[in-house]
Amino acid sequence: MTESDLLSLLRTLPLHPGARDLRDDAAVVAGLVLTTDTLIEGVHYLPIDPPEDVAWKLLAVNLSDLAAKGAEPEGVLLNYGLRDPDWDQTFFAGLREALTAHACSLIGGDTVTLPPNAPRVLTLTALGRNASAPPRAGARPGDLLWVTGTIGEAGAGLAIARGEPGPPELLRAYRRPTPRLAEGRLLAPHVHAMSDVSDGLLIDAARMAEASGLAVTIELSAVPLSPAYRAHCGDTRGDPLAAATAGDDYQLLFTAPPGFAPPVPATQVGAFAPGTGLTLTRDGEPVPLPARLGYEHGG
Amino acid sequence: MTESDLLSLLRTLPLHPGARDLRDDAAVVAGLVLTTDTLIEGVHYLPIDPPEDVAWKLLAVNLSDLAAKGAEPEGVLLNYGLRDPDWDQTFFAGLREALTAHACSLIGGDTVTLPPNAPRVLTLTALGRNASAPPRAGARPGDLLWVTGTIGEAGAGLAIARGEPGPPELLRAYRRPTPRLAEGRLLAPHVHAMSDVSDGLLIDAARMAEASGLAVTIELSAVPLSPAYRAHCGDTRGDPLAAATAGDDYQLLFTAPPGFAPPVPATQVGAFAPGTGLTLTRDGEPVPLPARLGYEHGG
Repeated sequence: MTESDLLSLLRTLPLHPGARDLRDDAAVVAGLVLTTDTLIEGVHYLPIDPPEDVAWKLLAVNLSDLAAKGAEPEGVLLNYGLRDPDWDQTFFAGLREALTAHACSLIGGDTVTLPPNAPRVLTLTALGRNASAPPRAGARPGDLLWVTGTIGEAGAGLAIARGEPGPPELLRAYRRPTPRLAEGRLLAPHVHAMSDVSDGLLIDAARMAEASGLAVTIELSAVPLSPAYRAHCGDTRGDPLAAATAGDDYQLLFTAPPGFAPPVPATQVGAFAPGTGLTLTRDGEPVPLPARLGYEHGG
Repeated sequence: MTESDLLSLLRTLPLHPGARDLRDDAAVVAGLVLTTDTLIEGVHYLPIDPPEDVAWKLLAVNLSDLAAKGAEPEGVLLNYGLRDPDWDQTFFAGLREALTAHACSLIGGDTVTLPPNAPRVLTLTALGRNASAPPRAGARPGDLLWVTGTIGEAGAGLAIARGEPGPPELLRAYRRPTPRLAEGRLLAPHVHAMSDVSDGLLIDAARMAEASGLAVTIELSAVPLSPAYRAHCGDTRGDPLAAATAGDDYQLLFTAPPGFAPPVPATQVGAFAPGTGLTLTRDGEPVPLPARLGYEHGG
């Protein structure tokens, strides 16, 4: 089933008004922002990833969705499958550290015992408050597309986690992403549309354009790359296309009209116009789209 | 890890004030009741259970927790692992039917692709509103223990689902439990403590007593059994002990002082007193506790 087929299927269910027609990463109900993400061992993280880092990431990916709505974390629910007491203990130590680091707390959850050899399935649901909650679908024709921070470190870090040599800084970007909560709080009241970059800059920008009923053009030479990423990848592999199609960045992608001065470090990487689809340019010249824009769910 | 060890571990995490110290089946945050349950294929349901019934049950077990807090369903979040398009389509058709039957709607969720051969892990999180939310820990010395409806049909239905002969009525009790939402609404403002019976009457009553810091005595001859259950089990196997230690009833267990007249069909099955632990009687005479009080999580 493709992601599009799946969304069509989900939209046959009765939808809550706060569901935003399932076009957003978060819902808004009774003034609370709600988001939930599931990580599967071997799919969303490597079986060799340290349990405390998996706990960190599980929390961070959910708080990143709150960040994209400009919400303050209220608390989380955890659905956890017990399997190996040592791993479980270390996971909970990591979760304690991560919750404390983000001034967040546990609201509840459910703990079940996994069958032996079943991959771990970890679900966390985060609640946020006081959000202006700009939609993913809010981009307007003429808006510019911005992204906070730099892109691609986590993708390089994943290769390092898989055994490629590389600096701990990039590995850490993959294993311990930072949800951009402060940036989201500052941006949310002023932007037209916002989402996080979880599956890749190109695919997340394309989804924002599709949800907004617009076309988006992205300039590859503008994609912000960190010194560590450039140093690691070198001239050829530092191609921004690799960075822009890798996932797990957890930066914020937002749109605003020309003239907007972002209150946080951010880079203008594209623009929206009437139409549909994603166009890539490099130094202003159109270039073909890659076969894969990022991580696609389902399918 | 035992359930008690696990709760001790979870209580090392920073807890939200609405978490009720993890002593309840539901949390209360910003006026919303929140509950979440995970069903694992082969653990909480049989791989041969029809997908539309699994969807029904996933929703029902969560709405049952809302019922125990006297909440009206606001909506649900779904975390779903795709694996087999035919099964998935039928599951979603069943979920549509179940949501519609309970005037409930989808708020959001996350859909992931399961590795081949991984057991399905299904998580649903339900939000409820307008709840008086009596705690599980609210029983007082002298309170009587009541249970709505009848007990044990789902346990008998599980045996039928596993191949034992038996009537469809009992099989249906296992596969299509009814969350007691109307009963919960009527009871919640008047009772001292309330929970649902999900893991077995004895174990859920024992948890209520422990959470309340009290002892509870249950009279086995008072456990309400349905005509269908009695007819199916016969004189010997109709022992209320089997019914009271089987799970999946989803009736409501509540406490109130002597003289309380429940506004819904309910049976008085026990009483609370200062002290700790569970005592069983049959026709007023103490009987030994069974080795297993019900379904225990973790461990």
